[in-house]
Amino acid sequence: AQNSRQDSINNPNYQVNTAQRILNGNINTKGVTVGGYGEITYNRKENNNAELDVQRLVLLFGYKFDDRTQFITEVEFEHVKEVFVEQAFLQYSVSDNVNLRAGLMLVPMGIINEYHEPTTFNGVERPSMDGSIIPTTWREIGVGVSGRYNEASLRYQAYLFNGFVSTTSDGNGNITGGNIGGSSGLRGGRQKGAKSTMNNINFSGKLDYYGLPGLRLGLSGYFGRTQSPADVENIDGADVGLSMIGLDARYAYQRFTARGQFIKGNLSDTEDYNTATGSNLGSALQGYYLEAAYNLLPQRKKQQLFGFVRYEDFNTHASVEGNLTKDLSYDRQEWTLGLSYKIAPGAVVKGDYQIKNNQVVGGSSVNQLNLGLGVWF
Amino acid sequence: AQNSRQDSINNPNYQVNTAQRILNGNINTKGVTVGGYGEITYNRKENNNAELDVQRLVLLFGYKFDDRTQFITEVEFEHVKEVFVEQAFLQYSVSDNVNLRAGLMLVPMGIINEYHEPTTFNGVERPSMDGSIIPTTWREIGVGVSGRYNEASLRYQAYLFNGFVSTTSDGNGNITGGNIGGSSGLRGGRQKGAKSTMNNINFSGKLDYYGLPGLRLGLSGYFGRTQSPADVENIDGADVGLSMIGLDARYAYQRFTARGQFIKGNLSDTEDYNTATGSNLGSALQGYYLEAAYNLLPQRKKQQLFGFVRYEDFNTHASVEGNLTKDLSYDRQEWTLGLSYKIAPGAVVKGDYQIKNNQVVGGSSVNQLNLGLGVWF
Amino acid sequence: AQNSRQDSINNPNYQVNTAQRILNGNINTKGVTVGGYGEITYNRKENNNAELDVQRLVLLFGYKFDDRTQFITEVEFEHVKEVFVEQAFLQYSVSDNVNLRAGLMLVPMGIINEYHEPTTFNGVERPSMDGSIIPTTWREIGVGVSGRYNEASLRYQAYLFNGFVSTTSDGNGNITGGNIGGSSGLRGGRQKGAKSTMNNINFSGKLDYYGLPGLRLGLSGYFGRTQSPADVENIDGADVGLSMIGLDARYAYQRFTARGQFIKGNLSDTEDYNTATGSNLGSALQGYYLEAAYNLLPQRKKQQLFGFVRYEDFNTHASVEGNLTKDLSYDRQEWTLGLSYKIAPGAVVKGDYQIKNNQVVGGSSVNQLNLGLGVWF
Repeated sequence: AQNSRQDSINNPNYQVNTAQRILNGNINTKGVTVGGYGEITYNRKENNNAELDVQRLVLLFGYKFDDRTQFITEVEFEHVKEVFVEQAFLQYSVSDNVNLRAGLMLVPMGIINEYHEPTTFNGVERPSMDGSIIPTTWREIGVGVSGRYNEASLRYQAYLFNGFVSTTSDGNGNITGGNIGGSSGLRGGRQKGAKSTMNNINFSGKLDYYGLPGLRLGLSGYFGRTQSPADVENIDGADVGLSMIGLDARYAYQRFTARGQFIKGNLSDTEDYNTATGSNLGSALQGYYLEAAYNLLPQRKKQQLFGFVRYEDFNTHASVEGNLTKDLSYDRQEWTLGLSYKIAPGAVVKGDYQIKNNQVVGGSSVNQLNLGLGVWF
Repeated sequence: AQNSRQDSINNPNYQVNTAQRILNGNINTKGVTVGGYGEITYNRKENNNAELDVQRLVLLFGYKFDDRTQFITEVEFEHVKEVFVEQAFLQYSVSDNVNLRAGLMLVPMGIINEYHEPTTFNGVERPSMDGSIIPTTWREIGVGVSGRYNEASLRYQAYLFNGFVSTTSDGNGNITGGNIGGSSGLRGGRQKGAKSTMNNINFSGKLDYYGLPGLRLGLSGYFGRTQSPADVENIDGADVGLSMIGLDARYAYQRFTARGQFIKGNLSDTEDYNTATGSNLGSALQGYYLEAAYNLLPQRKKQQLFGFVRYEDFNTHASVEGNLTKDLSYDRQEWTLGLSYKIAPGAVVKGDYQIKNNQVVGGSSVNQLNLGLGVWF
Repeated sequence: AQNSRQDSINNPNYQVNTAQRILNGNINTKGVTVGGYGEITYNRKENNNAELDVQRLVLLFGYKFDDRTQFITEVEFEHVKEVFVEQAFLQYSVSDNVNLRAGLMLVPMGIINEYHEPTTFNGVERPSMDGSIIPTTWREIGVGVSGRYNEASLRYQAYLFNGFVSTTSDGNGNITGGNIGGSSGLRGGRQKGAKSTMNNINFSGKLDYYGLPGLRLGLSGYFGRTQSPADVENIDGADVGLSMIGLDARYAYQRFTARGQFIKGNLSDTEDYNTATGSNLGSALQGYYLEAAYNLLPQRKKQQLFGFVRYEDFNTHASVEGNLTKDLSYDRQEWTLGLSYKIAPGAVVKGDYQIKNNQVVGGSSVNQLNLGLGVWF
């Protein structure tokens, strides 16, 4: 059984995700560990039918080979009938502070990409900017190192990753299209470790500071270039440069919790890229959100009922290059108001209402009702 | 390990399925439970090649969050390379008699839809009417309540479900086709919890009575309307009304067991539906089967060898409306004779021979030989 | 946790694969067993982008029903998003030496098809001839018997299997194409237990002798005919006869290990087959490899670092019939040089370099760099 203090809705000083919980050895000390999480959702946009979906069911298998060597994998079933291996990495601990890792891993950027178990965040759906600005769940194959200096209250991660693939080709040296751009930014370029191509190395790192009671601060960075098929890699605009910076904070004090993040991604060579591929990729992506929540039940109760409000502002056309004009519908503002009822540690019932706007003149709000169940075990 | 008295081929008073076995806490009392069932089959229709198939392999994962809260999920691999999340629901026990449930759940109708583990029924294949009249495995996303009054020997279930989707549209207000009708009735309308649409709520309930030694009686009901895409939902014939009633009985006395069920489904607005979609949906579906089996081995043996015979009669055109004429090939009669050799509790080797007829004048029987392995753990 | 002496890179007298490890009862003596293996790879052909892939992740579930009865299944996730049930069989032990088996099973031929866990072989990729000559992973649905006579140091296996499907048809008695032939031989005819057709039975057997210290010898045979759809099965050339013989040896002495295998497959009626289907199937497939490895670390260390070299020579056009001319590009020679660093029992980091040639006059070598992670738990 899990410990409720590991849940980031509560004290972020102790937060872990599924993989970390196993790596920390606080479930099984040896042998195979089986865990999982899942979300079943009801989404109803105004003037539409409701959609009911088993959005995701994820099974986690971990194994400790010896005191230094562990393997973690997550198998995700999406929308009932799709399957993805979402994580699969080997960790070798050189010392307490130096853990080598290689395989299919999460890119540490912001909060949700690493911590997306449904009992760790408020709202039926993940924050919208964690889909469009950070392309959650963002994972690629890579190698790196992570560690923790408890005396300095610091956790670090540094990885070399395979990156986004930006371009498609006909195999004969002609670009046939682009995978990134538009409303969802880099999202279409994720390779997810499936026969992924690599011609450029990308660096990803994150620092977490948890030295102040109840507070956890994060600074993330990602730097590199996108990938392109070998037959077009020397064509101008086949790939773009990318540097992304993220700041995030989580705070808890008694029945009150809050969190927020700011992400800015700068892309170079987007004018060439848009010319070569016919895409509409912006030269900057940017967004932030702020969220506050309050537990409406007494703290001594095992159950918790958080009321929360979240405001998001994000834009996949924060800047554009060349003769591309900004699409104002990509400049979005969203309010989410709702409740998270934790009926047991690891089980949550959620409901919220979202009001979604953008900067198109005369455009109207789209409102959406969301209900959901979430489990993490 | 499982207890053989839970197997419905034996005393139906104690019958449970995989999910119930975990919820009852008789495997693990806390932590993750892993189980499963599977069927590997050999089917040979007269004058045809045999077909060999790993028809299904199902893995079950359960977790008990606390004394009141449990999560159950089943992941099904069909025909070697397809995957479906078949069940995924959260149960919260308010009291011994009131268990709230929500998620992707089985619709309780007849015997097999809820109890389809291969060691719990005779015959390599499930009864044919449990494919055409009851669209086994029938599952949708819903909420509801279940409980057991042991003093009255009564189990009840009551759910609100998302229902069948009957119609497809082009998104611009035009119906493009129908999902239900013909030989397999409602089967094509199952949404299975995968991005399912909902504009009508359906009610499903079942009562089980197990107060007489060796006997278990069931009364099932399902009432509602089918779903249709929002852009066509106001067109006449986009959806149909549905009320289905089922009666089932299971009996065991020493080496003798028997079971049977009767199902009747009435559909309204089928004339409009067939006009709008070009389908041939009947206005009533009906069927029954009777089965008797005898354990050919002494009762003191752990192994069991049941010889059985089953007769089925079912019709997806039990009634038709408007100018639709009954398709006599949908009025089917089947005899199944075979053996179920339980080599261990949870492992069975099966063989049977089926003689399949229908009411087409001058039509000939189709005979089929079936062999199979089944496991449940 | 696993025992390093079971690893075939070490003493082959004690070698087992995942299924055998569970069947032998040396993990769990009762209940559900969960295990798995996986490979994450980096492949770079000269003058090409690298490809990064979660090539396979396999989960294994075993259950012991009683002292005689066990079920084993493996679910394989390939290239992140494909799924296959790779094994699913029931074993019933009549006596110590006679174990009946039925279900989806591995065909015993050579070394790798039965023993492909990544810590049991050197090289990031399996030997190439185990893809083209033996179509690894070769599995079908069948029944058979296996056993072990420890006093004679002998293990035997004998199975009746469903075989390759060689031909496609239009359902009206016309052949529309062929599944086998060319560079990869029989590979395209594997049915893998997925709604597989059967009109001819195939026999497969293997003898393993492990009576000399450090040595394990294998003799495999496979005899039968391919399958074809019922509507074309009487057309000449719809199926072909197949007899395949394999010899394999594994040896270990202190820090030195070696292995090799020779496979010869003879096919009959290939002239008719090629005429009927337009394929280019050879009348003989043949290949061998030899491999030597040396542990560069002291034997007392738990970690091992094997340097190895492997030479392969294989040809899917070893003979041809009729007016088919040999395709010299199918006559291949490959050198592989590399390192296997076992960082823990069950976890390996691999790297190697491959030089691939064929008999085409004036053809040039294709060289390839491979890096990989492998786990087995």
